[in-house]
Amino acid sequence: MKKLINDPRDVVDESVEGFGLAHADLVTVSRDPLFVSRASGAVSGRVGIVSGGGSGHEPLHAGFVGYGMLSAAVPGPVLTSPTPDPILAATKAVDGGVGVLHIVKNYTGDVLNFETAADLADADGITVASVIIDDDVAVKDSLYTAGRRGVAGTVVVEKAAGAAAERGDDLEAVAEIARRANAATRSMGVALSAGIVPHVGEPGFTLSDDEIEIGIGIHGEPGRERIPLEPADKIVERLMTPILDDLEVASGDRVLLFVNGMGGTPSLEQYIVYRHAAAILADRGVEVTRSLVGSLVTSLEMQGVSITVTRLDDELLALWDAPVETAALRWGR
Amino acid sequence: MKKLINDPRDVVDESVEGFGLAHADLVTVSRDPLFVSRASGAVSGRVGIVSGGGSGHEPLHAGFVGYGMLSAAVPGPVLTSPTPDPILAATKAVDGGVGVLHIVKNYTGDVLNFETAADLADADGITVASVIIDDDVAVKDSLYTAGRRGVAGTVVVEKAAGAAAERGDDLEAVAEIARRANAATRSMGVALSAGIVPHVGEPGFTLSDDEIEIGIGIHGEPGRERIPLEPADKIVERLMTPILDDLEVASGDRVLLFVNGMGGTPSLEQYIVYRHAAAILADRGVEVTRSLVGSLVTSLEMQGVSITVTRLDDELLALWDAPVETAALRWGR
Repeated sequence: MKKLINDPRDVVDESVEGFGLAHADLVTVSRDPLFVSRASGAVSGRVGIVSGGGSGHEPLHAGFVGYGMLSAAVPGPVLTSPTPDPILAATKAVDGGVGVLHIVKNYTGDVLNFETAADLADADGITVASVIIDDDVAVKDSLYTAGRRGVAGTVVVEKAAGAAAERGDDLEAVAEIARRANAATRSMGVALSAGIVPHVGEPGFTLSDDEIEIGIGIHGEPGRERIPLEPADKIVERLMTPILDDLEVASGDRVLLFVNGMGGTPSLEQYIVYRHAAAILADRGVEVTRSLVGSLVTSLEMQGVSITVTRLDDELLALWDAPVETAALRWGR
Repeated sequence: MKKLINDPRDVVDESVEGFGLAHADLVTVSRDPLFVSRASGAVSGRVGIVSGGGSGHEPLHAGFVGYGMLSAAVPGPVLTSPTPDPILAATKAVDGGVGVLHIVKNYTGDVLNFETAADLADADGITVASVIIDDDVAVKDSLYTAGRRGVAGTVVVEKAAGAAAERGDDLEAVAEIARRANAATRSMGVALSAGIVPHVGEPGFTLSDDEIEIGIGIHGEPGRERIPLEPADKIVERLMTPILDDLEVASGDRVLLFVNGMGGTPSLEQYIVYRHAAAILADRGVEVTRSLVGSLVTSLEMQGVSITVTRLDDELLALWDAPVETAALRWGR
């Protein structure tokens, strides 16, 4: 295992500490329990938004804490859900008196721990609404998950909900926006190599020299199939067809096209993937109204990409375009 | 070789095409000769800024084309300088009548080809000034280079020069800002693994399972030494000490600290590196006034990082903070 780390047990604490130092203008880091929240603190009368999950997917979620997106992020151990305690602490820290939305990727551990934290918050007089993200069309009911998994589409949901909270929507309205953004979003990924969990020291799975895995999960959990390496355009077709079929994308639709690097795949390749995904949409008469390309929902140093498509209506488009100021996404400010 | 590509000969064209499609609001792609320029075109009375070099370092340089930074970028073949033709075409395309600055990383091929293009532009009545970037303290006179190499500090120079051009500085003033930013900047990198040039198909060099290379170049050219893998904090010390000694950083100085991922190293590790680099600066009484963390000057899928430190004065700080709107850096707009 070759990584730029110190003691494998300190990876998350040290990385979050570095993140807090680098972005002290945007965020504050609570060390114990561990969570990252906006430097500006809770805003009275504004819905707070908390997300979180296992570490190793950076910049998700801490990279999206800031104006117009998350109020706080709760990083768990690597590829492991945070416990209810830090989720509860983050929820309390961002409560502006009008409730808090939990945005939870659909993995059993995350769902349970966010539920427990929501119950505890409720007992403390904080109203919590929860939205489960399940954008991954690759498989239903997999390792760690009942139903579909939540993957890179989480970025779209966090952006839409954050913009809704910022414009003053109430808790139910912000939650409804998040549900609608999730319902309009589909994703699927491919791995060329596996990430290595630091305290394990071995790859999460093994692919032979000419093998790839279609439909990989962001924890390295199994996808649809392992096949020989193919040209990028063929791989892109294998991802786009299930996405577009499932989303029932039709000619005339407007979409956000998001190509996400898995951590070990450089920008050069991400844009080759983007190129053909855009061509497939053009062939179907679909307008790519907004684009996003970057390594935003990673799986440690995994080589691979995922593609996310969100069908945009006027409101989701306006929420996407609204100002955002976070470490990983920033525009309009 | 496992990459998300089609024909290895088409990698650059297809990636740049994808980049142009994804960022059509910011850039226009000229296919033949190949260069990327601002969608808004040349601005009359404003100094144009052109950079470029071999591909494989994305988002450098095309990711920095846009308001407040580059006017155009010229991508060569992978890890190979562009020829004078596209450099000349880009120079003509961005000339606003008051001259064009070439920002050139110090590699023999780049220097020669940009010089030739400058001579040809001059014959066409366009005044060109050139600034050579040589921020890498690792080695002097290496493969491809007489003198020091230009690496991630290029981002700082392009940002400072772009902001100077945007505020209306004349050609000589913009060139002077670029030279001053370069003189205030030092970098050094480390590789854990090598990138693979697509049409070669084999790694540019080989490191054993527990070996790293200190002072690596962004083309995989040799650094200072190969040593066994160490904890991140020790590696960071090996990079920071030569940087700070060479820059003669003193207590009370204000700096920009930039941790750059080499393409295959995820955000999680980059912030662990940032954390200790910041601690070393704090120990020396140096104020980290601005921070940047991300994979901005890569070497294909190389695993590793570089660290860049720029000593800031009031003017360089103001130029850094000035609005920028490019695919890879965006704030204030």
